[in-house]
Amino acid sequence: MDEKNSIDEKLILEMLDERKFKELKEILMTMHPVDIVDVLEELNKKQAILIFRLLEKEEAAEVFTDMDSDTREHLINALTDSELEEVMDQMYLDDTVDVLEEMPANVVNRLLKVTDEDTRKKINLLLQYPEDSAGSIMNVEYVSLRKDMTVADAILKIRQVGINKETIYTCYVTEKRHLVGAVDVKDLLTAGENRLIEEIMDENVMYAMTLDDQEMVATCIKKYGLVAMPILDYENCLVGIVTVDDAMYVLQDETTEDISIMAGVTPNEESYFGTSVFKHAKGRVVWLMFLMLSATISGEILAHFESAMAAMPVLITFIPMLMGTSGNSGSQSSTIVIRGLSVGEIEFKDFFKVIFKEIRIAFICGVLLAAANGIRIYIMYGHDIMLAIALGITMIAIITMAKCIGCTLPLLAKKLGADPALMAAPLISTIMDTCTILMYFTIVTAFFHL
Amino acid sequence: MDEKNSIDEKLILEMLDERKFKELKEILMTMHPVDIVDVLEELNKKQAILIFRLLEKEEAAEVFTDMDSDTREHLINALTDSELEEVMDQMYLDDTVDVLEEMPANVVNRLLKVTDEDTRKKINLLLQYPEDSAGSIMNVEYVSLRKDMTVADAILKIRQVGINKETIYTCYVTEKRHLVGAVDVKDLLTAGENRLIEEIMDENVMYAMTLDDQEMVATCIKKYGLVAMPILDYENCLVGIVTVDDAMYVLQDETTEDISIMAGVTPNEESYFGTSVFKHAKGRVVWLMFLMLSATISGEILAHFESAMAAMPVLITFIPMLMGTSGNSGSQSSTIVIRGLSVGEIEFKDFFKVIFKEIRIAFICGVLLAAANGIRIYIMYGHDIMLAIALGITMIAIITMAKCIGCTLPLLAKKLGADPALMAAPLISTIMDTCTILMYFTIVTAFFHL
Repeated sequence: MDEKNSIDEKLILEMLDERKFKELKEILMTMHPVDIVDVLEELNKKQAILIFRLLEKEEAAEVFTDMDSDTREHLINALTDSELEEVMDQMYLDDTVDVLEEMPANVVNRLLKVTDEDTRKKINLLLQYPEDSAGSIMNVEYVSLRKDMTVADAILKIRQVGINKETIYTCYVTEKRHLVGAVDVKDLLTAGENRLIEEIMDENVMYAMTLDDQEMVATCIKKYGLVAMPILDYENCLVGIVTVDDAMYVLQDETTEDISIMAGVTPNEESYFGTSVFKHAKGRVVWLMFLMLSATISGEILAHFESAMAAMPVLITFIPMLMGTSGNSGSQSSTIVIRGLSVGEIEFKDFFKVIFKEIRIAFICGVLLAAANGIRIYIMYGHDIMLAIALGITMIAIITMAKCIGCTLPLLAKKLGADPALMAAPLISTIMDTCTILMYFTIVTAFFHL
Repeated sequence: MDEKNSIDEKLILEMLDERKFKELKEILMTMHPVDIVDVLEELNKKQAILIFRLLEKEEAAEVFTDMDSDTREHLINALTDSELEEVMDQMYLDDTVDVLEEMPANVVNRLLKVTDEDTRKKINLLLQYPEDSAGSIMNVEYVSLRKDMTVADAILKIRQVGINKETIYTCYVTEKRHLVGAVDVKDLLTAGENRLIEEIMDENVMYAMTLDDQEMVATCIKKYGLVAMPILDYENCLVGIVTVDDAMYVLQDETTEDISIMAGVTPNEESYFGTSVFKHAKGRVVWLMFLMLSATISGEILAHFESAMAAMPVLITFIPMLMGTSGNSGSQSSTIVIRGLSVGEIEFKDFFKVIFKEIRIAFICGVLLAAANGIRIYIMYGHDIMLAIALGITMIAIITMAKCIGCTLPLLAKKLGADPALMAAPLISTIMDTCTILMYFTIVTAFFHL
């Protein structure tokens, strides 16, 4: 993508080995903090600390913010208090809070010790917002203007306050800390210097509350194409903003969470390699255990039809195919509905529309699969047309049932306030296994008078 | 979220019924185009057209851009050429191209007829970029500056050119159309009027090429927290920019595509309700057919062990549970690896690290599940300790195998340039069904000398 920034890790390692610190420092200065993090995470702890110490103050703070919590903890242990203080001074408050939330208590204490009292107070306030709330991800550094300021005053204020780029693209106008409007930086740039903010501001501002869910805020930022969204506290005072880059990460994390749940894995906020084997196992074994025990019901039902299978052993042959097909058909529908719900394409009010659509889809799929399977049976099992027909009817019935159950469960979950993602492949296949065996043997025992 | 904008659909319908067009027009003016689209899509075609005609020019263009292709086509058929021309004039070029790509040929011709020749040329150029390329989603309206301009010149230029907000947050500096730097609007705002662009510009600009994959560009925008990314053509000339709001939609669409493939559904760009039943069925039946035919292998293997099952009928009871558990275990691993690959947390070089981790996780899960299942069997099947042990060994073996196969296949797919998402639940469960039956009967026949 961007060749200017793809500096070789090997080169950095070489320079480190040859102790060419001055050249290395120059190279690091041209690199993007995100790329430095990529390199650091590949090095051993000792090398990483050496590199970190070569960084400029501001860059060091950004690198410190972006690295994973494991590397960060090692680094904190290696740095002196005064080095740590320098890094903390340069960090944005919301990033500091994110970092603190992930650290063990003793590290948090050490970090808080090196920050000044004023910042410490603000940090403690932010730490109180519940996880996943807008308050917990908001940026508290933003530009607030007054209605009676001129454009020139506003520009002066931006010069003093606006530290981070994203945070100045929209400036917010407040009156006794209440949000009364917003001014886009473009309007500041193009309006006359002496015009009043009041005249150029947009009074129709979208906002969210500190306790709103972060996913809702991020979705809103995406939907309306915003650069930032102002956040108000319970007294309707402006206390922070959520910027588009944070929104992108929130949406990515929420999707990862959904996908985990859809695979029957309890989601966790840590990275794959950052999570211990034991924690991974814990996140997976609960669902496996539940599904395993549920699957014994299918086993019992199967045992119940033992005599039918003894009378006609060929019936056993089709069980994996039927269970697989019904599970897959159901998962297709449930997955599509879950995703549709999550991006806002499908809502609960579409319930009957969805079911009607899925039934028609199921019928087409069922007939095609029944036909293909019928031909196969006719050829492979001595032209047994009755067997082909019985299997065909079973196939259409189970696919229709699978698609109905598959699309219904996520919609019901949504309506009942549960997570639709729970109704994905693992649960649907387990339910469909039971239904399939029941339906299969009901049809074939009736058909062949077993 | 934002109470100011949640205007009741019912209210709008009432006003439409009572033909209070003037009041309706005023309400529409205060609404966000995205919200108007939400309302329009709930109305019937005739009502939608009535509402659309009440919109202001600029708002109409935005609403037209945001609505789904179905509603849009109806609208185009109802509008006169001159109405259409007005809408097209107000639209951004990249949006026009998006709209044209979705329309049938006769509509495209009608739309192109009402645009002026210059725009038509530009549109045709953009239409030539391959789907999913950076060129196909880029914005061709951006601010380009020259090195020798002063800040005051630059501001004047923005006033003339910068139409869309997002497109001015970063201005690009070109020399003979080649990209030489970027200036953030904050720097323009805070630098002295007479300073040269050359002095304040950042020469280290990230860029992408027109033919680069749109997902790569969007990922880059997210990773580096950019507001926009400049796009160069094959001659290294600046031809457009991709903005962060477009990047968010690209990432969402790519995730939806991944999730579809992971559920065994061929993805399509249309919405759930915008896709016909036949097209839905087509997207699903291919995988179902393939998996159904693959599942017959499991059936044949099962038939092969008929005599073992006849000798010890209780063995049948455990088949659904074992197949379900192995499928779920394998899907857990494959899903987590697929997502890890897609967000860049896992790479192919982590191959052995991943396998080693999964084996350990599998062992913990396997032992716990074997124990739970063993206790159940011991209680339910007349204290048959041998059966409990045989099933326990099978359980540990299949979970370990499932997790190994589940994590390996997506990594191999990635390495071989295939889509890792193909290696998700449907395929893994089908493979695991076969492996499970083979392993189960190999173990129990050896154990009980069947």
